[in-house]
Amino acid sequence: MSNWKHRHVLDLANFSIEDFATILKLANRFKAVPTSGTRKLPALQGRLIATLFFEPSTRTRSSFELAAKRLSADVQSFTPNSSSLSKGETPIDTALTYVAMGADVLIVRHGSTNVPEQLAQYLEKAGYKKTSVLNGGDGLHSHPSQGLLDLYTLAKFFSPNNPIPDAIQNKKIVIVGDILHSRVARSNLWALTACGADVVLCAPPTLLPEEFADFVDAPPPGQKYDPVSKRGRVTVVRSLKNAFQDADAVMTLRLQKERMRQNLLTNLKQYHYEYGITHESLKWCGKKVPVLHPGPVNRGVEISSALLEDNSICLVRDQVRNGIAIRMALLYLLATSN
Amino acid sequence: MSNWKHRHVLDLANFSIEDFATILKLANRFKAVPTSGTRKLPALQGRLIATLFFEPSTRTRSSFELAAKRLSADVQSFTPNSSSLSKGETPIDTALTYVAMGADVLIVRHGSTNVPEQLAQYLEKAGYKKTSVLNGGDGLHSHPSQGLLDLYTLAKFFSPNNPIPDAIQNKKIVIVGDILHSRVARSNLWALTACGADVVLCAPPTLLPEEFADFVDAPPPGQKYDPVSKRGRVTVVRSLKNAFQDADAVMTLRLQKERMRQNLLTNLKQYHYEYGITHESLKWCGKKVPVLHPGPVNRGVEISSALLEDNSICLVRDQVRNGIAIRMALLYLLATSN
Amino acid sequence: MSNWKHRHVLDLANFSIEDFATILKLANRFKAVPTSGTRKLPALQGRLIATLFFEPSTRTRSSFELAAKRLSADVQSFTPNSSSLSKGETPIDTALTYVAMGADVLIVRHGSTNVPEQLAQYLEKAGYKKTSVLNGGDGLHSHPSQGLLDLYTLAKFFSPNNPIPDAIQNKKIVIVGDILHSRVARSNLWALTACGADVVLCAPPTLLPEEFADFVDAPPPGQKYDPVSKRGRVTVVRSLKNAFQDADAVMTLRLQKERMRQNLLTNLKQYHYEYGITHESLKWCGKKVPVLHPGPVNRGVEISSALLEDNSICLVRDQVRNGIAIRMALLYLLATSN
Repeated sequence: MSNWKHRHVLDLANFSIEDFATILKLANRFKAVPTSGTRKLPALQGRLIATLFFEPSTRTRSSFELAAKRLSADVQSFTPNSSSLSKGETPIDTALTYVAMGADVLIVRHGSTNVPEQLAQYLEKAGYKKTSVLNGGDGLHSHPSQGLLDLYTLAKFFSPNNPIPDAIQNKKIVIVGDILHSRVARSNLWALTACGADVVLCAPPTLLPEEFADFVDAPPPGQKYDPVSKRGRVTVVRSLKNAFQDADAVMTLRLQKERMRQNLLTNLKQYHYEYGITHESLKWCGKKVPVLHPGPVNRGVEISSALLEDNSICLVRDQVRNGIAIRMALLYLLATSN
Repeated sequence: MSNWKHRHVLDLANFSIEDFATILKLANRFKAVPTSGTRKLPALQGRLIATLFFEPSTRTRSSFELAAKRLSADVQSFTPNSSSLSKGETPIDTALTYVAMGADVLIVRHGSTNVPEQLAQYLEKAGYKKTSVLNGGDGLHSHPSQGLLDLYTLAKFFSPNNPIPDAIQNKKIVIVGDILHSRVARSNLWALTACGADVVLCAPPTLLPEEFADFVDAPPPGQKYDPVSKRGRVTVVRSLKNAFQDADAVMTLRLQKERMRQNLLTNLKQYHYEYGITHESLKWCGKKVPVLHPGPVNRGVEISSALLEDNSICLVRDQVRNGIAIRMALLYLLATSN
Repeated sequence: MSNWKHRHVLDLANFSIEDFATILKLANRFKAVPTSGTRKLPALQGRLIATLFFEPSTRTRSSFELAAKRLSADVQSFTPNSSSLSKGETPIDTALTYVAMGADVLIVRHGSTNVPEQLAQYLEKAGYKKTSVLNGGDGLHSHPSQGLLDLYTLAKFFSPNNPIPDAIQNKKIVIVGDILHSRVARSNLWALTACGADVVLCAPPTLLPEEFADFVDAPPPGQKYDPVSKRGRVTVVRSLKNAFQDADAVMTLRLQKERMRQNLLTNLKQYHYEYGITHESLKWCGKKVPVLHPGPVNRGVEISSALLEDNSICLVRDQVRNGIAIRMALLYLLATSN
């Protein structure tokens, strides 16, 4: 893995195609671990992986922790409930405790944008060379491991025997739902367009401002250049029927019910009628396409129960399973390159 | 363990004597693990055991997790606090995430009856062959691992060198207390009568309707036949003195103080006077008999402090210790037969 | 380690110089574990370490758990959130469950003074010979592992190649802050004076009654004699400037903001002005001295942000790192001597 050069993983905007290729290749190798031989790898034995989830999350934290255990690492978890947060400590100071304990990787989730980045900058400035920061989801900004597992799931679907970034080139991927409030959508935009897919975004204007069409046109503030020379296109389409035309894959996003209280939606039934993914609405794609959802699901809102349970096209279970392999790859790359 | 054929363990009503014998034999073997040799068995290395405790419990969850670790399995815990429950996900969808992560056994505790069973049925219908459901306690229905550890504790008491189901045959076991609200009592009824013990239930009518005398007369709804050809008798007795006559063992149950607010009891002092187990009241048994309690204990209510601390007859500590061995046996049987 | 004779570690008042020497030596050996060879020691494989934190704490619990894992022990955690506390069980009964599960060491933190001691006494009386109690902090009484890691951090600072108790002999250590409410200060008083350091306590009278000058003059109630023949002196000084004169090291304590509501302080700004440690105030020491803080920190109250981040003199990170080595030493000594 000599070409890996990210000490921290905070966003996917600065990933090159080679970076995506490295991770997908490693994840594909790790995917077989739990069912073969000793079912574990000794790669990270005695290493310390700390999950600092200032914003709670069952599935993401469990996935990271299991990935760490499959690589034989030690795991320590921090959640605000049982913590010194009530004592007024800053997230950075909490994190520094785990740095001092010798953590090789800090997985940080926080409701505020850029907390993982601030921590990484602090570590760089203070000369801590041994600890990597892995963004486990920050505010509305980024959720890189989710973007990578979605990419891998799609690549594996289109090219089961050779799930490389090229597998999704020129594919038309539709992302439906609350894109404005979704860090998952943002990470997917960087990942999918880097690998040459065209992304169609579909939602009402309150959940998807027109400006999202330009989202990947320039690197985010603070990043000097885009490591990807030619990205796929991003378009904004309001009608699900139009968006689905010739689509190769559909991703739908969780709709938080509080969007109603914020007057961004009139009612959930109407939303489901216009933007809910069902066996019916998928017919507009003109062929059988896979459906992804990052979970947790609101059954009957953004996706129908029947579709969620149709394993022939709904890849939710694959996403969860692939998530562990992707996170093993990330932890391995970060912990062994420090 | 070639004769083991339960993919899931949801209840003890469908256990044959051979099933009980298999588990007791294996538990008796596992009991020595923590104090001999390497103190761990590699049997479940790399296997994933997930504890999904929608209803919180310290002792049961710790016991299962420790059992899993003694067999070298990886453990992931879900508790609603740090979770996506607040996001409105159903218990089944939460569980499916852990299934997708590759869990070999899901240990499910839920305040509502039949959630573990619904999950097991879902998995069967959806074709998930790799994951077993182990009921960690559901509503007022069943708590099979507790029933098994109580059985093992009694068998070990009556026959230390050969703790088989036969060891409790024809014994008279008295269960005292809030039987109506106790899944522990229900699981014990199936286990004890299967092995040929006669069970005497003792409590005031508000905590023990007369119908409990018929509890094991027919298999529960949905189960076609009773795998046990001849069960011990169940009788309902209102007076502790009468119940204790010729008793061979006494089990008392936790009395939840909210039963007072529900007007099922007039006051706790009176309850302790009539149904509290003490050195005094045990004299009615006519001989020295062991006392069991599933914990946690209300000292001075269902049992006196002095009796709780009298290790010569109070088997509470043995129950906890045996619980780990029983749960190792259950996890081993379920995880290795998938 | 043949001279180790404490079955429980509850307080540092009954530690001899040999006890301190044994722990420092072992900790210094363990400190290299996470960065060398297999990064783990098999010493406590299959042993059970249970952390019972009735009072929550992130850093202390994580530190103990990581120490246990570095020695390959199994860890079970109890915190009241996910527990049977709500069911009215006493802390002793909760602890006895883990004793029955075979715990080798119970690490107990509780808001009330003496809960760990009561538990230890109970275990002795009841004849439980296998389980040790390690005080993880009780009320305002004692926090022995913190006292030991502070001692080790100072010894390592003054004598990097030979961090023995003698390394702090005749040093002048200033403890500044809310000493009245600090179990950390109390444990440090016993540890530092035992090793021959002179301790200067500095705070306003509401946070430091005059009687603290006599704190180590006699062993605490219940302890027959002082195992240390000649302790360092303890003096109470009100002015930071006077306290810092000729100081060799400074420890500052967390100031809980609720002390304001209790009218023990007029305002935080004034407190920082008079007792806050800064690069400026440290000049009164007349030389470069190290600064310690047990964490979590209130930046800008008891210590300035600039000083906290100045790793050339602020040893907070060393304290955290050393804490793991000290706790490995304690767990090793307790678990292997039962």
